[in-house]
Amino acid sequence: MTTIRAVEVHDVRFPTAAAGDGSDAINRGDYSATYVELLTDGPLVGAGFTFTNGRGNELTCAAVRALAPHVENRSIEEIAAEPVAFWRSLTADPQLRWLGPEKGVIHMATGAVVNAVWDLRAKAAGLPLWQLLAEMPTDELVANVDFHHITDALMPDDAVAILDKGRHGYAERLAQVRGDGFPSYTTSVGWLGYPDDKVRDLTRAAYAEGWRAMKMKVGGDLEDDVRRARIIREEIGPDALLMMDANQVWDVDEAIAAMARLAEFDPYWIEEPTHADDVLGHARIQRAVAPVRVATGEVAANRVIFKQLLQADAIGVMQIDACRVGGVNEVLAELLLAARFGVPVCPHAGGVGLCELVQHLAFFDYLRVGTSLEGRMVEYVDHLHEHFVDPVRTRGGRYLLPTEPGYSATMKPSSVAEFSFPEGPVWR
Amino acid sequence: MTTIRAVEVHDVRFPTAAAGDGSDAINRGDYSATYVELLTDGPLVGAGFTFTNGRGNELTCAAVRALAPHVENRSIEEIAAEPVAFWRSLTADPQLRWLGPEKGVIHMATGAVVNAVWDLRAKAAGLPLWQLLAEMPTDELVANVDFHHITDALMPDDAVAILDKGRHGYAERLAQVRGDGFPSYTTSVGWLGYPDDKVRDLTRAAYAEGWRAMKMKVGGDLEDDVRRARIIREEIGPDALLMMDANQVWDVDEAIAAMARLAEFDPYWIEEPTHADDVLGHARIQRAVAPVRVATGEVAANRVIFKQLLQADAIGVMQIDACRVGGVNEVLAELLLAARFGVPVCPHAGGVGLCELVQHLAFFDYLRVGTSLEGRMVEYVDHLHEHFVDPVRTRGGRYLLPTEPGYSATMKPSSVAEFSFPEGPVWR
Repeated sequence: MTTIRAVEVHDVRFPTAAAGDGSDAINRGDYSATYVELLTDGPLVGAGFTFTNGRGNELTCAAVRALAPHVENRSIEEIAAEPVAFWRSLTADPQLRWLGPEKGVIHMATGAVVNAVWDLRAKAAGLPLWQLLAEMPTDELVANVDFHHITDALMPDDAVAILDKGRHGYAERLAQVRGDGFPSYTTSVGWLGYPDDKVRDLTRAAYAEGWRAMKMKVGGDLEDDVRRARIIREEIGPDALLMMDANQVWDVDEAIAAMARLAEFDPYWIEEPTHADDVLGHARIQRAVAPVRVATGEVAANRVIFKQLLQADAIGVMQIDACRVGGVNEVLAELLLAARFGVPVCPHAGGVGLCELVQHLAFFDYLRVGTSLEGRMVEYVDHLHEHFVDPVRTRGGRYLLPTEPGYSATMKPSSVAEFSFPEGPVWR
Repeated sequence: MTTIRAVEVHDVRFPTAAAGDGSDAINRGDYSATYVELLTDGPLVGAGFTFTNGRGNELTCAAVRALAPHVENRSIEEIAAEPVAFWRSLTADPQLRWLGPEKGVIHMATGAVVNAVWDLRAKAAGLPLWQLLAEMPTDELVANVDFHHITDALMPDDAVAILDKGRHGYAERLAQVRGDGFPSYTTSVGWLGYPDDKVRDLTRAAYAEGWRAMKMKVGGDLEDDVRRARIIREEIGPDALLMMDANQVWDVDEAIAAMARLAEFDPYWIEEPTHADDVLGHARIQRAVAPVRVATGEVAANRVIFKQLLQADAIGVMQIDACRVGGVNEVLAELLLAARFGVPVCPHAGGVGLCELVQHLAFFDYLRVGTSLEGRMVEYVDHLHEHFVDPVRTRGGRYLLPTEPGYSATMKPSSVAEFSFPEGPVWR
């Protein structure tokens, strides 16, 4: 038995805004983490976090404290035995639910806590999270999914069928990714804050390193977008993939018009063309810009939004996020929904530690749920990995399979101390 | 000139959970307010709030503190001159936006702040808020609406046409509501926490007081719902309206099945039949349960959700909330959207002070936007009005027109002191 005795939360912020890293059409942030440690009655510590953009990280930290009573003094065995009851104790708390429901600050904090619980479960099992999940019996995996409000799209029997099918060919797929890793793409080349020369240099360097899929930010001045797209396409040639990301800045008709102009650069997808809540808007845009794919998800509040994006044929690429929603349990629901609708999952990463987390989800998806690499890529941003005990490893533009027990969520104590807000040396 | 010098926020909580008041299928709360006071360089104080359900009210309070720098040292004249720029300084803050966007804790806090600004504007004008709005020139009203992400449903020109049309017959409508007030319905009879006898007694008393529209909570055990619906229908006869409210507890197919069973009691609407984010689900339910109307909105995160509910023909009644969204500016957008799609608005009220706020919005809607009372009712719950300086006044089941300057949002200092959490005498 491993029992959680205390929930500690750290407000960790990295001063990235000044450098222009991570700037896009609407965000200019100090990449931050609401970092949660679950202290237990044994040697194990569960680590989890949600990602925020700087100011306001104190809100998700406070929300973790509000949720902590649902976690303290519970054993991971008890949680694993009734995982949906545990998950709902957080998401359907009869007072806290009003603050969402299942969205924004309270849901992101739920994600941080739930992720820490899964890190602890994986550490207790002595397995990396992807492996704990990928080798879990079907009925146990299904028991971790809350089907509430998605049964019109995915029933438990559907999930069983998908996960049972995912057992076939498992060993071959595992051998393949052990050797080759998982495809990824880079977003480090085209932030809006970067001047043209820097975009060209970074693109050239990334291509030389082996990247064949790159993402640029759009949604500022359209002629700037055109000029930067031209630079990147010149550098990567006609065959590499160029993705575009508008970070929700456009209205629906504006998105359709802008993509008509940007089509000459053969974008592979347009990401977040409009407001994250606008399912019908995404559907209209998808119809208008095809064969360019609409991609979204990093700000999709929960499984109910993803369900609708799939039902409405609004997306060609589904971008799960490890921290925006209610942690691993809700991501399981989302991966199953994507498989049910036959839409490839390309996880959102970057920020603080998102690469570390989503690699586990992507490998699990390939090994047991989606079972294909076609159209699958994990985002990769080369920021802040040095603060993690078990950082991502890449080779030639591919993520390598994590091998350490847990969810790769543990930050170095020295980094937590140095970047804690407001008392850490960086912020004093 | 009136300049805001400081933002004070109070965590005010009323211990309502113990009494079973306000209990429904998913909420059991201590009705609470994140109460904001804008202190100025003059004698005026702007008051505003958002409503929460108890625990977690400290999060919306902290979010108000995070937003305060956008308000401090700004004059109401400057805000009134560029209202959308001001509104976006709150909703599109490049770091805080990540915590929503435009949803949950950060957006509810925005609502509290923006409501306080409007209270201040109305007090400075010496007018009740409904009158400030209803008599505002069309171009000034339109300038207060952020059309971002809704232009595919409502363009500024559409808003101008609606508001100009709303000037015709204004004097007659005003004379009418001055005499007769605004229709309302009561939710005080059928909370899930109440035993059958209490439901029957309350229903009988409400009918005797003149109420001809009553709402019950459903979504617990279906046979309990049937029994309670029968009691209420017996008491109110065939002609009075019976509304049902499931507070999002059902899945889509479950909602359709439950309403087939409850149809014998001739419900006027089914409110929140499923998850608040599920536009497509509401649309399916609306098609299945017609002619019963689907109603929702108290937890609709923002204007983008309302836009889609209207675009998808998912609702027959639109229930705006004064505090869930980004305050009066966003409610303006929502009222205009409802008028554009021809759907009647029946504001959500109850909680703490929601009746006090939404009466202004309902009167404004009738006088200048929707211009009809057909199918319009404001919710009324007889709780906690005694804590407000300018409480709602009703007669024979109708709201009377507010007459005091402001948004009726000011709480009595003695109530703020007594119910402040955790230091007030009630909580010590």
